[in-house]
Amino acid sequence: MSEKIAQLKELLGEVADLRQVQNVLEWDQNVSMPPGGSEARGQQLATIGRIAHEKATSDQVGKLLDDLKQEGLDPDTDDGALVRVAARDYDKATRVPGAFVAKQAIAITKAFDAWVEAKGKSDFSIFHPHLEKVVELAQEYISFFPPAAHPYDTLLNDYEPGMKTADVQEIFDHLRPKQVELIKKVNSSKQVKDDFLHKKYNEKKVWDFSEAIITKFGYDWSRGRQDKAPHPFQTTFSVNDTRITNRFEADNPLATLFSAMHESGHAMYEQGGNPAYERTPLAGGTSLAVHESQSRMWENMVGRSLPFWEHFFPALKKTFPSQLDGVSVKSFYKAINKVESSFIRVNADEATYNMHVMLRLEMEIGMIEGKFAVKDLPEIWNAKMDEYLGIVPPNDAKGVLQDVHWSSGLMGYFSTYALGNLVSAQLWEKINKDIKDLDEQIRKGKFDVLLNWLREKIHIYGHKYDPQDLVQKVTGSKINSDAYVRYLTNKYGTIYGL
Amino acid sequence: MSEKIAQLKELLGEVADLRQVQNVLEWDQNVSMPPGGSEARGQQLATIGRIAHEKATSDQVGKLLDDLKQEGLDPDTDDGALVRVAARDYDKATRVPGAFVAKQAIAITKAFDAWVEAKGKSDFSIFHPHLEKVVELAQEYISFFPPAAHPYDTLLNDYEPGMKTADVQEIFDHLRPKQVELIKKVNSSKQVKDDFLHKKYNEKKVWDFSEAIITKFGYDWSRGRQDKAPHPFQTTFSVNDTRITNRFEADNPLATLFSAMHESGHAMYEQGGNPAYERTPLAGGTSLAVHESQSRMWENMVGRSLPFWEHFFPALKKTFPSQLDGVSVKSFYKAINKVESSFIRVNADEATYNMHVMLRLEMEIGMIEGKFAVKDLPEIWNAKMDEYLGIVPPNDAKGVLQDVHWSSGLMGYFSTYALGNLVSAQLWEKINKDIKDLDEQIRKGKFDVLLNWLREKIHIYGHKYDPQDLVQKVTGSKINSDAYVRYLTNKYGTIYGL
Repeated sequence: MSEKIAQLKELLGEVADLRQVQNVLEWDQNVSMPPGGSEARGQQLATIGRIAHEKATSDQVGKLLDDLKQEGLDPDTDDGALVRVAARDYDKATRVPGAFVAKQAIAITKAFDAWVEAKGKSDFSIFHPHLEKVVELAQEYISFFPPAAHPYDTLLNDYEPGMKTADVQEIFDHLRPKQVELIKKVNSSKQVKDDFLHKKYNEKKVWDFSEAIITKFGYDWSRGRQDKAPHPFQTTFSVNDTRITNRFEADNPLATLFSAMHESGHAMYEQGGNPAYERTPLAGGTSLAVHESQSRMWENMVGRSLPFWEHFFPALKKTFPSQLDGVSVKSFYKAINKVESSFIRVNADEATYNMHVMLRLEMEIGMIEGKFAVKDLPEIWNAKMDEYLGIVPPNDAKGVLQDVHWSSGLMGYFSTYALGNLVSAQLWEKINKDIKDLDEQIRKGKFDVLLNWLREKIHIYGHKYDPQDLVQKVTGSKINSDAYVRYLTNKYGTIYGL
Repeated sequence: MSEKIAQLKELLGEVADLRQVQNVLEWDQNVSMPPGGSEARGQQLATIGRIAHEKATSDQVGKLLDDLKQEGLDPDTDDGALVRVAARDYDKATRVPGAFVAKQAIAITKAFDAWVEAKGKSDFSIFHPHLEKVVELAQEYISFFPPAAHPYDTLLNDYEPGMKTADVQEIFDHLRPKQVELIKKVNSSKQVKDDFLHKKYNEKKVWDFSEAIITKFGYDWSRGRQDKAPHPFQTTFSVNDTRITNRFEADNPLATLFSAMHESGHAMYEQGGNPAYERTPLAGGTSLAVHESQSRMWENMVGRSLPFWEHFFPALKKTFPSQLDGVSVKSFYKAINKVESSFIRVNADEATYNMHVMLRLEMEIGMIEGKFAVKDLPEIWNAKMDEYLGIVPPNDAKGVLQDVHWSSGLMGYFSTYALGNLVSAQLWEKINKDIKDLDEQIRKGKFDVLLNWLREKIHIYGHKYDPQDLVQKVTGSKINSDAYVRYLTNKYGTIYGL
């Protein structure tokens, strides 16, 4: 290792430590912090964030990167990838002036408070001026970067490096009509029965069952834990300490099982990272979409499959004999895959979920292009919901105000949720080619061959390859919707007898 | 507020944030962290510690302090106290070279590992060379400071600002013979019965009872929490987030109650701090001894008193009817105050505890003076145990190797435990003068007048006054053992009919 690489790693190692410390502070905020702790925690996070930013954008880092770029390292080596990723991060961080970051932070705090109020009162007019501000700030942010094919590219790139707006639009244009058609077919079929999912289930037993499942998956408890929090999420303090949170909702009790599978999918991706990448920008997943491909695969391809429940249903029935009395594994499988157009994205089933995402992407692009006025958003939202899902929200709280993202200044993020679904299906087809008896293994509750495949093909590479390159390398194609359409058509064709 | 004070507060605020972040990281390490997280956590703590040290010792801070010292602020004002305390911290931090700190950190890591092994095997020879190194480092540390009346003064001052070794020796010389005499008298009296304390108690019920007690004390749960950890401790993330930990030991189940009282005493001190001192060196308790006076007061003066149990015993008996069947409140009171010479400091009762501390102080002073060779320590230890408590440890694990402090490089710390006991008794006499019906209030489970007294006289001042000045201000005398001797003689005179 060259002296300069060593120096760069030392400097970036400090930044990585600070970022992980931020994660610890945020985890505690969500999991343990008493209400009184809030103000000081904000201060602590701001201090750590400021120091991390100073260190990440120091002239010393810039100089080392310039020198190292001259060396023309082989981009396929770890050092080559490190310099490429670090230089991109550095460029991004130094382009955005500190004054803008501070201004944005203040605007977002206000926007968030306004959103909470607006959602509570279901009154878009309260959020409207703040959302206009958020859009303006996003446009200003874009202005710090060289012009791209589409202004939205800059936002998208923060979450999906290397991805273009046009690529996503093409993918979604291909997917949209097929998914709309599928939903229409399902809607005209006989609905499945799922009343037994909404009976009273004991929280502790559900929680324990969720842990039994992800233990079988291969989530490593010596390097993680599951805690209760207002929202399920996964966070990383190091490759050897990646934690998940979960919740229990009495009216949807078994959702806890699927959240655990989902978050453990994220966590196993992080646990499978290359230890040599620790404290460097190569650590962690390569993009939100690839991350989401892991969580959605464990949750849906595995956890909502028939073979999976052929293994686990007897134990579930033994744990909840009265709730599941007379329910067959097939009825259970159908119930957990029930398709129903609904207003809320986070509660949407597999078949309708992407429609929620595509709708938001169109909104964001429209706002960034200035094609949609923010004031018209509720109307456009409702029209799209009608077009895509055949339903219209009764109010804005269940419509345009439902998601936190915009109020937190996040623009460019949403499409990664749908892209993750697509990638999960592309990987799943490849995995099933490579592991011929995968269904049989799952039916036996055996997941080690699957997890090892993911570790070897995806997890170990961390941030080394950009998402499109990684998907291409593993599946032979770039991100596209073909596999996902086949997956949905096949799955729901069987369930709904289409 | 002058411009320079504002600048100083801004700079020291960052340092305070970083110190509190260290506390969060350490709390998580003890309470939540999975085993795998250990290595990265060490790295994160090292990074935060290094940055905090850099910021605390920056030239900018030094220059501001120099300028502010010229201004001759009234030392009785908050700003005057801030500059005095900050200048002392700065002087201390800048005297010790970074290279020494790094060298010490490495030596301590090795010493700790050696101590764990030595204690496990009860073999002092494993720890011996490391303890020699720790003593050498302590001597080197002392050499960075101007010569004091006694070299040990420098170490002591890190924990008890303004306290001299000669003061502590004088206090202890006065206390020692009286406490030895009391123990001898007790030993020749009829022992009290306490078998019912060591029956099987349900962990959750004990835990809940501990929380019911400290809720009554006035521990503010909206600004704190109690978690399980290997050792009970208190930690502060801000005046509005001060947490405690506790444990349950099946062979000493009710110890959990007294640990909760002890740690909540520390926590209520921190919760009662002046919010205006937040993010400055004036926040937090003024010294370890004064901190310990708060914890020991709630644990012993309150929690091991007869009036306290006259209030709580009926509820305890209702919770544990079979364990406490036929036990009167008086027998219970005697049992929880049983005096018995024992080997382990942390398990020692009130009457023998200080002897353990005095023994360690003599050891430390002897080592620092070079009067005691480290190799002779086990022998000296055992002789002192015999002299003070009339018992000799069967092995070094139960003797010289029992405490973690030296292996962690902590020298100068021990005496604060005993000083805290003395201060608690001085305060207790004063409180009983000011609150005439305190016993009656405690018998009614009413603690608000007591807590308000402590808040007003002690807590609100944070670090503003040095410990001796604070004790003088509140009680009219400096720290001394008279009140404690009266307290012990009176309490154990009654219990053992001396």
